[in-house]
Amino acid sequence: MGPRPSEFEIIDRYFSWALPSKWHTQGIGDDCALVDIGATRVAVTTDTTAIGTHYLPDADPLTVGYKALAVNLSDLAAAGAAPRAFFLALSLPSSNAEWLDAFSRGLHEAATQFSCPLLGGDTTKTVMVNGEAAAATITITAIGEVCRGLTRGGAQAGDDVWVSGTPGDAYAALMLRTGTWQGLCDSYLASRMDKPTPRVALGQFLEPIASAAADISDGLIQDLGHILSRSGLGAEINAGAIAVSESLAKFPQEKRLKAQLAGGDDYELIFTAPKSVRNDIEAFARQAGLVLSRIGQTKKEMGLTLTDADGRIIHETWSGFDHFKSDN
Amino acid sequence: MGPRPSEFEIIDRYFSWALPSKWHTQGIGDDCALVDIGATRVAVTTDTTAIGTHYLPDADPLTVGYKALAVNLSDLAAAGAAPRAFFLALSLPSSNAEWLDAFSRGLHEAATQFSCPLLGGDTTKTVMVNGEAAAATITITAIGEVCRGLTRGGAQAGDDVWVSGTPGDAYAALMLRTGTWQGLCDSYLASRMDKPTPRVALGQFLEPIASAAADISDGLIQDLGHILSRSGLGAEINAGAIAVSESLAKFPQEKRLKAQLAGGDDYELIFTAPKSVRNDIEAFARQAGLVLSRIGQTKKEMGLTLTDADGRIIHETWSGFDHFKSDN
Repeated sequence: MGPRPSEFEIIDRYFSWALPSKWHTQGIGDDCALVDIGATRVAVTTDTTAIGTHYLPDADPLTVGYKALAVNLSDLAAAGAAPRAFFLALSLPSSNAEWLDAFSRGLHEAATQFSCPLLGGDTTKTVMVNGEAAAATITITAIGEVCRGLTRGGAQAGDDVWVSGTPGDAYAALMLRTGTWQGLCDSYLASRMDKPTPRVALGQFLEPIASAAADISDGLIQDLGHILSRSGLGAEINAGAIAVSESLAKFPQEKRLKAQLAGGDDYELIFTAPKSVRNDIEAFARQAGLVLSRIGQTKKEMGLTLTDADGRIIHETWSGFDHFKSDN
Repeated sequence: MGPRPSEFEIIDRYFSWALPSKWHTQGIGDDCALVDIGATRVAVTTDTTAIGTHYLPDADPLTVGYKALAVNLSDLAAAGAAPRAFFLALSLPSSNAEWLDAFSRGLHEAATQFSCPLLGGDTTKTVMVNGEAAAATITITAIGEVCRGLTRGGAQAGDDVWVSGTPGDAYAALMLRTGTWQGLCDSYLASRMDKPTPRVALGQFLEPIASAAADISDGLIQDLGHILSRSGLGAEINAGAIAVSESLAKFPQEKRLKAQLAGGDDYELIFTAPKSVRNDIEAFARQAGLVLSRIGQTKKEMGLTLTDADGRIIHETWSGFDHFKSDN
């Protein structure tokens, strides 16, 4: 075995080629690639979820099906795209009819809810390892339509930083279910982990007015970090301004903060927008019944300053989630 | 465990929904879906290949990278599409730098050869099972551009049936490497298994003149069967007319025929075309230096009649490859 590069190093080192494209493209390395096909700009994303990695080994297959599509629709939402179609590649250790029935119902539920038809796919049997079934992996490629398209790279100094929903809930559910945190995983927290809501309508609303966006799959700080590094900016963030759910608020501040800032798996949107559209965003939030928190602003100077509700600096060492880092 | 449906039953039973699509589509269940995005018709395909299923456990990662893209480009070829872009989802048990380096070089070789840039992707770590690494799976979604697009569904009674190359070579290589056949796997046969040639130029040539096409991933008879069932036709096929490589010709007729007719993994094209374009097809074959065999014709009456070089009926019981059939 050679040295073990991280997920981001893998992409940079091995898969960042410069082959000419007949279709104008941008946003490679973002949540979506934006590709101009004729006069239509599409957003395309590919995400794999795997039993044991993204789902607990005994996860309900209905929620597995729902979430497998939801995480891809979340990437489309981050680009401000309207979902149009998806393709499914399913690798299974065996073809258990009961599992497939529930999985396909969950997938169908998300596809119907977000008007995103399944247009093709592939089904593969994975091998047994020492008589044990290999984990199921589900790869979905989703395609949406945008006008301009949001990327991580357009933030301007002085923009507001916003986040949707109540980040940290999915992480809290995972910690409770695995016994890392003491306590019962209530049905609200469970639903945020099992059936995250891709913020598709929010993404489409933001597309003409926001300056940059990402979805929170790896943790708020890490995903904000992608926006800042792509945009060449820093930010001041008040963690105390992040909306917190009743269920998460019951836990001590240290646990809560880690869940909110580094938890990941929330599929909320973090985005930047000029101050001039603050009222429009607040009006959308009221109308949609969706919590949107204004949590800070970007600045010219690189680096991230994190404070708590009382204005004290938070010295955090969490780095968000990297699939190939051994300390996760 | 419930009953175990086959790969085709899985698709029919669980994933054949009728959700409305904003983009006009056809060919769902074919090698590619054809999707109209604005004035541009694209062909989209998703294929997973897995170590241990599509590659031997000790496969050279360079050939794994090449083949992972080649099999998707072969689907684009079957639709008559010009490759435009692909997306990669890689599920790995660990991030071995040596493996990734060779894999990415193989992938890059195929991408460069067929002018198909990588526009996005996802890297996921799969779990260990009982301390053993789970198999690596590679899912690629490839997008090409077509005018009309070929599907499996357009064959007419009385069309010629053609096949490219020398089918059976990849299967022979597999049989020899696994010791199922006695003998040495020569470098020619090995190359047909490890680095199959997607028939991209042939597909684009055929697009305006052929009536139906499929690539041979599951075996000539099974893939021809897809064309016949989609087109509502039968066929008479002379197996003796299928071009055979020098390497495969050394094996007894029974082995050879099974490899040619049911072998799969060849990624040659099987297609139907009216008699009126016979000369055009032969001229293309000469110019491209590619063997094209005219192996029979379609007929109104359902069913497939297979004969050998002497006109004797072949009673074969092979059904081609089904990932979830236990007898494979």
